Amino acid sequence: MSFDAYIDKINRRLEALLPVCGCDAPGVCDAMRYSLAGGGKRIRPVLLLESCRLCGGDPDDALDFACALEMIHTYSLIHDDLPCMDDDDMRRGKPACHIAFGEATALLAGDALLTQAFAAAAQSRAAELHPARAVEAVALLARLAGAEGMIGGQAIDLQSENRAISLSRLQTMDRLKTGALMRAACELGAVLAGADAVKRAALVRYAEALGQAFQIVDDILDVTADEATLGKPVGSDAAQSKSTYVSLLGLSGARAMAQRSTGEAVDALAAFGEDAAPLRRLAEHLMTRTF
Amino acid sequence: MSFDAYIDKINRRLEALLPVCGCDAPGVCDAMRYSLAGGGKRIRPVLLLESCRLCGGDPDDALDFACALEMIHTYSLIHDDLPCMDDDDMRRGKPACHIAFGEATALLAGDALLTQAFAAAAQSRAAELHPARAVEAVALLARLAGAEGMIGGQAIDLQSENRAISLSRLQTMDRLKTGALMRAACELGAVLAGADAVKRAALVRYAEALGQAFQIVDDILDVTADEATLGKPVGSDAAQSKSTYVSLLGLSGARAMAQRSTGEAVDALAAFGEDAAPLRRLAEHLMTRTF
Repeated sequence: MSFDAYIDKINRRLEALLPVCGCDAPGVCDAMRYSLAGGGKRIRPVLLLESCRLCGGDPDDALDFACALEMIHTYSLIHDDLPCMDDDDMRRGKPACHIAFGEATALLAGDALLTQAFAAAAQSRAAELHPARAVEAVALLARLAGAEGMIGGQAIDLQSENRAISLSRLQTMDRLKTGALMRAACELGAVLAGADAVKRAALVRYAEALGQAFQIVDDILDVTADEATLGKPVGSDAAQSKSTYVSLLGLSGARAMAQRSTGEAVDALAAFGEDAAPLRRLAEHLMTRTF
Repeated sequence: MSFDAYIDKINRRLEALLPVCGCDAPGVCDAMRYSLAGGGKRIRPVLLLESCRLCGGDPDDALDFACALEMIHTYSLIHDDLPCMDDDDMRRGKPACHIAFGEATALLAGDALLTQAFAAAAQSRAAELHPARAVEAVALLARLAGAEGMIGGQAIDLQSENRAISLSRLQTMDRLKTGALMRAACELGAVLAGADAVKRAALVRYAEALGQAFQIVDDILDVTADEATLGKPVGSDAAQSKSTYVSLLGLSGARAMAQRSTGEAVDALAAFGEDAAPLRRLAEHLMTRTF
């Protein structure tokens, strides 16, 4: 199945998985829909579905886990944009959730997306068919999204504001902040498909290299892109005096490192042969993205 | 097992279940520990363990779900206290999380507790022994904690600030905001024990009546308690012009309603006979609590 077809399925399913709030909490549900809809590249859920397929699983069974992962990614953006965090007014070319709905509603919408993600995962077809795999996948998702994963990276990010940090600290931060959910995508796909340890480890290596390349390209785009294409303000890293791959390595050094990481991602899938061509192309495509 | 013995187990296990963050995110992990430790009455996890026992399950198998529920309760308090929400500086007799650690760290600590709750549940002994029950329990927990449950109640609360609301709206709000996690406690205990539908429904009725009584007593204490005993400022409902059971029914009307709800909770357990005596006593005890 093409990635566009995956994205279609993901978008339709995301809408169906959101709670129907009736009269009780319309603002929060509207804010959840607003932030989930439109603009997202859906990289993480696509990675999950394709990793599942590559390991012999049925992507349809894993669809709700893929949507759960996108909900978690989206909640993290809502909370990251709040005034007490990065204080960003724009996201994906439109006002950030707290600008559109107010801070309190944005806070709750983020909380609700994170919570709904676990409802979706635990009610998925995968959970019905293979409950033991599903509980393993839920645990993995929670660990990678939590204080030892993505949130740990956000915490390092907080501590690093207005302060120069070393390249290795930056790599640790990004391995957690960006890499953990990329890893979750690929590893969950493998777990839900019942993949063996070798395939699972190969996908984890792919995801970690891809996550690093992705973050380096993000840093590059913050310097080189124009705001209309990127959908958010450019130059915000420099404005906040954040250490980035560009500030530490220069633009060409950062590009070389992203290229190297992309190569590592591609190489990690060698054992899968031609069947992994779509994931290899995705890595190369993300290297040359402009937003 | 006595409730004090349950509380001991819960407190020890909560500590063990928190992530070991090493050098990566010490602030967030410290804030998680700070808010989880001390002062909490642990009503929800105790209810879960005792409901499990009452339905023939082993409370030890359900312990991590009980801790998960307490983590979710604690995260909701951290986020509720934030300046953009209720803006409360004190909680359980000490500075609120965001006063002690700053807003950004408190936000992340809440997110991390919510996330860690699902890791704990999915890695529990219950999940190992009965994965199908565990995925059902995870889904139930997420639904009751989410936009259609607790968060829905918080959203109504937001909309109701500085505005009079009807008794029935207040009851809807509290059924979600307070009642949903009480229900989660009792219903999860039943699900994890593999209880039949009749027992499960009886425990749900007990939990909903108990939750209503609990909230009414909360409103009464906000008027009648002293700050040192309550561990948080009194009179905050009136200061925020919130409709409460006391403002709508008067103090004696509120007391009568709490008494009625407590009676309903006690009656709901009739079919369990003498074995339900501890849960009945808990309902009566909560009616007369002073904090």
